[in-house]
Amino acid sequence: MMVTLNDARRVIAAAETKAQEIGQPSNIAVVDAGGNLVAFARMDKAWMGSIDIAINKAFTARAFDISTEKLGELSQPGGQFFGILASNHGRVMIFAGGVPLRKGDEIVGAIGVSGGMKDQDIALAEAGARAF
Amino acid sequence: MMVTLNDARRVIAAAETKAQEIGQPSNIAVVDAGGNLVAFARMDKAWMGSIDIAINKAFTARAFDISTEKLGELSQPGGQFFGILASNHGRVMIFAGGVPLRKGDEIVGAIGVSGGMKDQDIALAEAGARAF
Amino acid sequence: MMVTLNDARRVIAAAETKAQEIGQPSNIAVVDAGGNLVAFARMDKAWMGSIDIAINKAFTARAFDISTEKLGELSQPGGQFFGILASNHGRVMIFAGGVPLRKGDEIVGAIGVSGGMKDQDIALAEAGARAF
Amino acid sequence: MMVTLNDARRVIAAAETKAQEIGQPSNIAVVDAGGNLVAFARMDKAWMGSIDIAINKAFTARAFDISTEKLGELSQPGGQFFGILASNHGRVMIFAGGVPLRKGDEIVGAIGVSGGMKDQDIALAEAGARAF
Repeated sequence: MMVTLNDARRVIAAAETKAQEIGQPSNIAVVDAGGNLVAFARMDKAWMGSIDIAINKAFTARAFDISTEKLGELSQPGGQFFGILASNHGRVMIFAGGVPLRKGDEIVGAIGVSGGMKDQDIALAEAGARAF
Repeated sequence: MMVTLNDARRVIAAAETKAQEIGQPSNIAVVDAGGNLVAFARMDKAWMGSIDIAINKAFTARAFDISTEKLGELSQPGGQFFGILASNHGRVMIFAGGVPLRKGDEIVGAIGVSGGMKDQDIALAEAGARAF
Repeated sequence: MMVTLNDARRVIAAAETKAQEIGQPSNIAVVDAGGNLVAFARMDKAWMGSIDIAINKAFTARAFDISTEKLGELSQPGGQFFGILASNHGRVMIFAGGVPLRKGDEIVGAIGVSGGMKDQDIALAEAGARAF
Repeated sequence: MMVTLNDARRVIAAAETKAQEIGQPSNIAVVDAGGNLVAFARMDKAWMGSIDIAINKAFTARAFDISTEKLGELSQPGGQFFGILASNHGRVMIFAGGVPLRKGDEIVGAIGVSGGMKDQDIALAEAGARAF
C-alpha cells in the first residue's frame, strides 16, 4: 500500500525529534493508502485520550486527501462539511494535526499527531511528512 | 494504578457532602491513571442519563489532563479542539464537572460529577478533588 | 426505583467482605429496577476488564429477571437463548455472577460481580443479595 | 504507567526479529498498565484486519491479566467465561497471541500479536515478552 513500516518509522522519528525540540510529548500515527494503521508511538507522558485522536487524524487526512486543519475550517457550523463528524463511525477528526503523505503528486498515506496545542500538532505532523 | 478504592470513596464522600449542602442529588465517578472506573455512586433522585456522563467526564479529565470545563471552552465551534467529541468512542464529555486528581505534580486520576447545573457540578467535583 | 444508594452500598459491602474472606479482589456493581447503575466498586487489584462485565452482569440479571448463571445455561449453542449476546448493544453477559435483588416477590434490581472464577463470583453476588 | 515507549519498542523489536526468523509478517502492539496503546507496528504484508486484533489481544491480556490463549480455553461453549466476547465494546479477543508483561510479580502491560497461525502468534508474543 506504498507506505512501508520503514517509511512510517522514519516519519514518526522526524515528528518525535520535533516534539523533543519543543518539549511536547505527543501521540504519532502513520496510515497507508488504505487509511489503515502502519505504526504508532505514544511518547512518555503524552495524553492518553489522544491515542485514538492521532490515529483518526491520520485516517481522516488520507480519507479525504486533505489536512485536518483545512477540513476543520470547512466543517464549522454553516460550513459545507458541517456534520461530517457523524460519518465513518467516529473516525473523522476535524482539528489540526493530520497531514497527507505524498509520493510525487499522489497521496499514499498520512500522519496524525495529537498531544499539544494546534500549532504544535501541526509542526510535528509537517516535520513527519517532510521526512517521508 | 495510584487511586485506591479507599481514595475513591473519600473523594466521592466529599463530593456527596457538598451535594447535600446545596441540595443537588448527583452522579459521582472516580477513575484511575488509566482512565478506568474505580468507584461510582448515584445519589437518590439523581438523573439517570447522567450516570454515563459522570463516568465519561472523569475519563475525559484524565485522558487530556484538563478540567472538562476548560476543554469545553477549547472545543466550541471555531476552537482548536472543535470535533473532539467524535473521538474515543463517545467517551469525551466537554462540559463542566470533570476535574483531574493530582499526587504532587502528577495527574493520577480524575473525578466526574453530573447531576446539576454547571456551577453545581464544578463545586462538587472540586470538593471531591480537594479530598484526594 | 426501589434500590437506594444506601441499599446498594450495603449490598456491595457484604460482597466485599466475602471477597476479602476468600482473597479475591473483585468488581461489584448494583443496578436498580430500571437496570441503571446505582453504585460500583473496584477493589484494589481487581481485573480492569471486569469493570464493564460486573456492570453488565447486574444489568442482565435485572433485564431478564434471572441469574446470569442460569441464563448462561440457556444460551449455549443449541440452547433456546443462544444468540442473546447480540442484543442490547453488548450489555448482555451470560456467565455467572449476576443475581437479582428482591423485595418480597418482586425483583427490583440486581448485583453483578466479576473478578474471579465462576464459583467465587457467585459466592460474592449471593452474599451481596442476602444483605439487600 | 510503567511501560515506556522505549520498553514498548524493545518488545516489538524482539517480536519482529522472531517474525523475520519464521517468515511471518505480523501486527504487533504493546499496551500499558491501563490497557492503553503505547506502540504499534504492522510489518509489510501483514494482514490489515489484524491491526485491530493485535491491539485488542494486548488489551485483553492486560484487562484480565492472562494470556489470551488461556482465556480462549475458558471461553469456549460450556466454559465459565463463554460470552465474555460481548463485553468491553468489542475489545476482548479470545484467541492466542496476547501475553502479559511483568515487572517482578506485577503485570504492568501486555503485548498482542496477530498475523499468523496460533503457534506463530504465540512464539512472537512470547519473544516480545521475554525482551521486556
